[in-house]
Amino acid sequence: MVKFSQAGLDASFTALSDATRRGVLEQLGHSDASITDLAEKFQMTLAGMMKHVGVLEEAGLVTTEKVGRVRTCKLGASRLEQETAWLEKQRQLWDARFDELDEVVEELKRKEKNNGSKK
Amino acid sequence: MVKFSQAGLDASFTALSDATRRGVLEQLGHSDASITDLAEKFQMTLAGMMKHVGVLEEAGLVTTEKVGRVRTCKLGASRLEQETAWLEKQRQLWDARFDELDEVVEELKRKEKNNGSKK
Repeated sequence: MVKFSQAGLDASFTALSDATRRGVLEQLGHSDASITDLAEKFQMTLAGMMKHVGVLEEAGLVTTEKVGRVRTCKLGASRLEQETAWLEKQRQLWDARFDELDEVVEELKRKEKNNGSKK
Repeated sequence: MVKFSQAGLDASFTALSDATRRGVLEQLGHSDASITDLAEKFQMTLAGMMKHVGVLEEAGLVTTEKVGRVRTCKLGASRLEQETAWLEKQRQLWDARFDELDEVVEELKRKEKNNGSKK
């Protein structure tokens, strides 16, 4: 059984809860980029982009490296494994629960039909 | 190709970014529960729990129904399909990118070895 880090999940899902931050991750999935590149691409101030990148860094989704005056962003060590595992576990519970409810509905339908045929 | 609803992903990932809200979803995956039950289980005030349930409701992850004085919570229509699909897509990009980097490293190693053997 996977033991989830609640603080880790908090940080990752917070990082993923913003469209720009998800966009940055998709971009870095294709190629590394500087903060300036990212700010331009997402039509944002440098300060605004640095804040978003900071949130992604805290969640381990991005790492940055400053060489000279350029800070380059690349994908971090987190591969979203915990997050994917949590979603999968939840979806399994979900499916089991809906299957249960389906059975209850089927059972009610059968009873209804039997009652109808007895009339 | 899946077309993602950015507002939907924002709402879901925000809802998932809190350990109590994730706990509520897990609980409702096992059985429906009243706000009072949930508040007790998570050692929280009724008002605090109602707020969390409100965030889950907005994301479509929970629905509630008030019968008499009891508000019962159950799983909502969202099955986290978009969220799982988004994570999967990102992980594929990730893997491809890391494979690419591995190849670059291998290539450098080969060159290094060849240079070494020439000396």
